[in-house]
Amino acid sequence: MRDFLPADKARRERVLSVIRSSFAAHGFDEIETPAVEDSDRLHAGLGGDNEKLAFAVMKRGLTVEDLHAADEPLDLADLGLRFDLTVPLARFYASHRAELPTVFRSIQIGPVWRAERPQKGRFRQFVQCDIDIIGEAGPLAEIELITATAATLDALGLSECTVRVNDRRLITSALTVLGFPLETHPAALITIDKLDKVGQDGVVAELRERDFPAAAVDALEAFFRRPMTMEFLPFGERSIRRLLPEGVDDAAIAELAAIGHAVEEGRGSDPHHPLVRFDPWLVRGMGYYTGTIFEIEHPSLGYSLGGGGRYDGMIGRFLGTDVPAAGSSLGFERLVDLVELPAVTGAEGVALVHDRDVSPATLVALQAALVGEGRRVRLIARPRNLAPVLDQLAASGFGEFAFVSAESTVDSLEFKPLS
Amino acid sequence: MRDFLPADKARRERVLSVIRSSFAAHGFDEIETPAVEDSDRLHAGLGGDNEKLAFAVMKRGLTVEDLHAADEPLDLADLGLRFDLTVPLARFYASHRAELPTVFRSIQIGPVWRAERPQKGRFRQFVQCDIDIIGEAGPLAEIELITATAATLDALGLSECTVRVNDRRLITSALTVLGFPLETHPAALITIDKLDKVGQDGVVAELRERDFPAAAVDALEAFFRRPMTMEFLPFGERSIRRLLPEGVDDAAIAELAAIGHAVEEGRGSDPHHPLVRFDPWLVRGMGYYTGTIFEIEHPSLGYSLGGGGRYDGMIGRFLGTDVPAAGSSLGFERLVDLVELPAVTGAEGVALVHDRDVSPATLVALQAALVGEGRRVRLIARPRNLAPVLDQLAASGFGEFAFVSAESTVDSLEFKPLS
Repeated sequence: MRDFLPADKARRERVLSVIRSSFAAHGFDEIETPAVEDSDRLHAGLGGDNEKLAFAVMKRGLTVEDLHAADEPLDLADLGLRFDLTVPLARFYASHRAELPTVFRSIQIGPVWRAERPQKGRFRQFVQCDIDIIGEAGPLAEIELITATAATLDALGLSECTVRVNDRRLITSALTVLGFPLETHPAALITIDKLDKVGQDGVVAELRERDFPAAAVDALEAFFRRPMTMEFLPFGERSIRRLLPEGVDDAAIAELAAIGHAVEEGRGSDPHHPLVRFDPWLVRGMGYYTGTIFEIEHPSLGYSLGGGGRYDGMIGRFLGTDVPAAGSSLGFERLVDLVELPAVTGAEGVALVHDRDVSPATLVALQAALVGEGRRVRLIARPRNLAPVLDQLAASGFGEFAFVSAESTVDSLEFKPLS
Repeated sequence: MRDFLPADKARRERVLSVIRSSFAAHGFDEIETPAVEDSDRLHAGLGGDNEKLAFAVMKRGLTVEDLHAADEPLDLADLGLRFDLTVPLARFYASHRAELPTVFRSIQIGPVWRAERPQKGRFRQFVQCDIDIIGEAGPLAEIELITATAATLDALGLSECTVRVNDRRLITSALTVLGFPLETHPAALITIDKLDKVGQDGVVAELRERDFPAAAVDALEAFFRRPMTMEFLPFGERSIRRLLPEGVDDAAIAELAAIGHAVEEGRGSDPHHPLVRFDPWLVRGMGYYTGTIFEIEHPSLGYSLGGGGRYDGMIGRFLGTDVPAAGSSLGFERLVDLVELPAVTGAEGVALVHDRDVSPATLVALQAALVGEGRRVRLIARPRNLAPVLDQLAASGFGEFAFVSAESTVDSLEFKPLS
């Protein structure tokens, strides 16, 4: 886990502020849930592999006897640090449904924790930025989510991002058409999810090693190897169908095409530089997705910047009755390094460099007067060597400095530029 | 721990934004540290009674044998949730000193966790807003901290707050003058700290019950009962001395008087409504304070809104060499309920109420156009009963609505006020 020094912290807050404003502009409302949730809720089977990465918070008042009587570590925990913002949202919605709009559009921006092995680009505490729409069964939910996400990336200067889309029902239909029995789909998807890493041959080889019907694996291999014309097709039913085996669920194709079409038309995309791209083999790990799924890609990154999808069954797990839901999550830590923010001008910041004989009352009175004028003011005792201190002030976003003597008044200060 | 619904969350963010801006305007820099710290650091004896309230995070990969071999619960924890922002700051400064200014003014705003028993106004997750100055040994640190804190309370409309000040050296000196041996001071202070609750007679009675020299308790009782004239004295050496036994440390009196004087003069206080008030029996629980201590009071509250003081020894515990330090903390949860913010006008928010036959592309295109004009836009499928939905939108800070049909364009929308 990391400390953030002032420059980093300021940068993070500025990026978060752009994200927050953009989500809010698209009609979403920010909420906040606690960092810890009941252990039982975190381990209810909705978090997939992330449940295994949950940090457990120990019960209070445990005795040595309790430790010795425990059957497993989780017996000693009643709380845990949240590993995502989706499980807490489902719990939140189930608790507060009566106080929320019929269609609830939520923003959640906050840290989550996972006990990841230390590796480059992976942190044990990191920030997620989620939007979700609960209570809207139609495709307008996905359209709004992808539109708001894309507009937010635009606002951050990341307009070169694209969105890969798929639908869980299309994968299921395609696997069925190819001959994979329904009960083999979860295992097959785990292998197919490795397509980016091991390629089509690797996927076929791995499927052959395991217990799948040979005819189905043959059909998949043949489908991978079929000749394809590369002429440009705009996103739509034709282009989706071309990337799928024949006989796949027509209704799901039409719905996904409509989502992509509405997103592109709504933002007035250039059809030769579409935002949305169909990926028939996009799986997205989490088991709770039931319909549309999508991932956000940036040309300079080998992994996704975020993603989301429809998860109609999850709220019901907490509420007892199913409520349709869909969400989109931006991985803030991956995003923040890509964003180039305009330089802070710092014109408003001023350092008052004073000798030790200037009375503190004079100093804080001068500070108060300048703060009252809307300036940022730092008091600096005159150091033996001024130059490095002035450099550091400039780097901290201060724009000017002035020497203060015992006789100084606000009107007598002479401001000099720091750089 | 609590969930925050949209209206609460928006209110909290607005108050935090005022606090953050005011602290920054006074020259402080915001940093961030992780929510969890190493268990050993949290239990290093710097957190006083709060250490006992730390939530412990279990080690990863524990086996049943580990549980059964443990001698105490903390053997199973390697991390813990921070219970304050001061211990993390000391650890942060020790880690990053070379990258920070010689005098480092930090802002930390974030949640802390304590395993409190559930009771009114106490939460297990709550937000603290701290400023600290590390590396400044002179009283200018306290003067800046109290000034920035008071200016922040002013910015929040809480100008009726006052600051009670004392100095640990004055309490020590006063107890010594009254005849309490040095080694009895910690125990005596625990009793004296109850003055607000049990009164002077209660404190004397409790001291008599315990193992303090009778002559010292007699001297304290006589001092409590001495006649005092009530004529107005402005804050200064004379007024401080009048509230202390004769013979107390003159240098500490002069320094505290200078701090109060500089704060009052710097902000141009009306001498008949001073901000700063000397309280010879202000103790402040934490053991790490070494000099000035202060607490912020509001006339409508029976407990403090925050406080702080000088803690010159603490950084050295992490760094190996002592570095002077002082800090001030605002208890955000106590503050946020007192603040009356101006009502949100909501003029910029608009709801687009649409029939189900309007194409999603039209809806998101209209939304995008209005967001581009700086408006906040929420799409609302026309409900059977419109009135309660419009009321809810008004309560959420939206100002206008417009009906959208399949033929609508941005220019044809007719905006109507929501209330």
